[in-house]
Amino acid sequence: MKLQLAIDELTLTEALEVLKDIHPYIDIVEVGTPFLIDAGREAVRQIKATYPQLEVLCDAKIMDAGAYEAQLAYDAGADYVTVLGITDDLTIKGCVEQAQKQVRQVMVDLICVENFAKRVPIIEAFGVDIIAVHTGADQQQAGRTPLEDLKELKQYTKDVQVAVAGGINAETIGDYVALDPDIVIVGSGILKADDPVAAAKEMKAALN
Amino acid sequence: MKLQLAIDELTLTEALEVLKDIHPYIDIVEVGTPFLIDAGREAVRQIKATYPQLEVLCDAKIMDAGAYEAQLAYDAGADYVTVLGITDDLTIKGCVEQAQKQVRQVMVDLICVENFAKRVPIIEAFGVDIIAVHTGADQQQAGRTPLEDLKELKQYTKDVQVAVAGGINAETIGDYVALDPDIVIVGSGILKADDPVAAAKEMKAALN
Repeated sequence: MKLQLAIDELTLTEALEVLKDIHPYIDIVEVGTPFLIDAGREAVRQIKATYPQLEVLCDAKIMDAGAYEAQLAYDAGADYVTVLGITDDLTIKGCVEQAQKQVRQVMVDLICVENFAKRVPIIEAFGVDIIAVHTGADQQQAGRTPLEDLKELKQYTKDVQVAVAGGINAETIGDYVALDPDIVIVGSGILKADDPVAAAKEMKAALN
Repeated sequence: MKLQLAIDELTLTEALEVLKDIHPYIDIVEVGTPFLIDAGREAVRQIKATYPQLEVLCDAKIMDAGAYEAQLAYDAGADYVTVLGITDDLTIKGCVEQAQKQVRQVMVDLICVENFAKRVPIIEAFGVDIIAVHTGADQQQAGRTPLEDLKELKQYTKDVQVAVAGGINAETIGDYVALDPDIVIVGSGILKADDPVAAAKEMKAALN
């Protein structure tokens, strides 16, 4: 089970500073969508160059031009790129084709996908590497969590890896681990903790 | 009727070079999604600083964290930011609230929205400024155009402005102009023309 640190609201300078102490406790560094808007794929490039032993995920949330946008992320050094599950099949297929060319991985983000029973088997059949349930920040404000979504997702997947994101913290991580996802994605639960390094260490320990 | 130039596949240096000759013929410069992934919001900042007389749109295709991501774009100087019509209502509302705070505009991109009759009136009621029909690049490859979508959109809008994007070029622009959109968005139709400046000039003339 891998721990993915989602960096959303930091500058590239701040992110590199935070990673100095946290990097031993995480497996994947996520350049989150707002971070990507702020810094562009240079963030992926610098994080990968600084921590080649870590995997880097570019949370581009691709909605169109799948092959082209995936290539932008992979060329910068990303091991994973995200594409939205609600988008056109052609876009997801484009990402998968590009990933296969560059020997990288595609994570599909199910944010706002309503019918898992219908959509998940179609997405898995495209050959994606990971399917992630994700309760967005705006939905979290409305009190939702991704726990039920993770349970439901696991009913419809066969061999694809599964990830979960959306407000997971030290108090709740055990509930998610019990459902045996392949990747647990944590952002604020680490970065906004009183002691981010201790929080990362605790989260990592909870996964083992 | 405004002409929006979508810049998708250029570097920031190339974009600034292209704009030197094209800027007199366009109203809005779009920092397209792949361009944003490549260069981050620095692209918005530099284009707005160089051409303060033009409007700049940041095609962030916001899917979550509406207020936060819209602010990133507006703070960099964007006059418009895009949010996806298929996303959560809370995210669109977050963008609108942020736009009102900063006196900027929100464009909703209907890419992959299937039921216009149901979704368009809801989106308009949130107080967005523009609703755009958009045939994605991957869908264009499959032979689709946004012409029928524009006709359909206009049946369901009241006062909101309307935009159209998706493979429009010098041969087809007349068909779109006949439907009287407020903004016509052109990318490859200008940037991949044999003579981009002549193409921009011709497109602009077609709108008047």
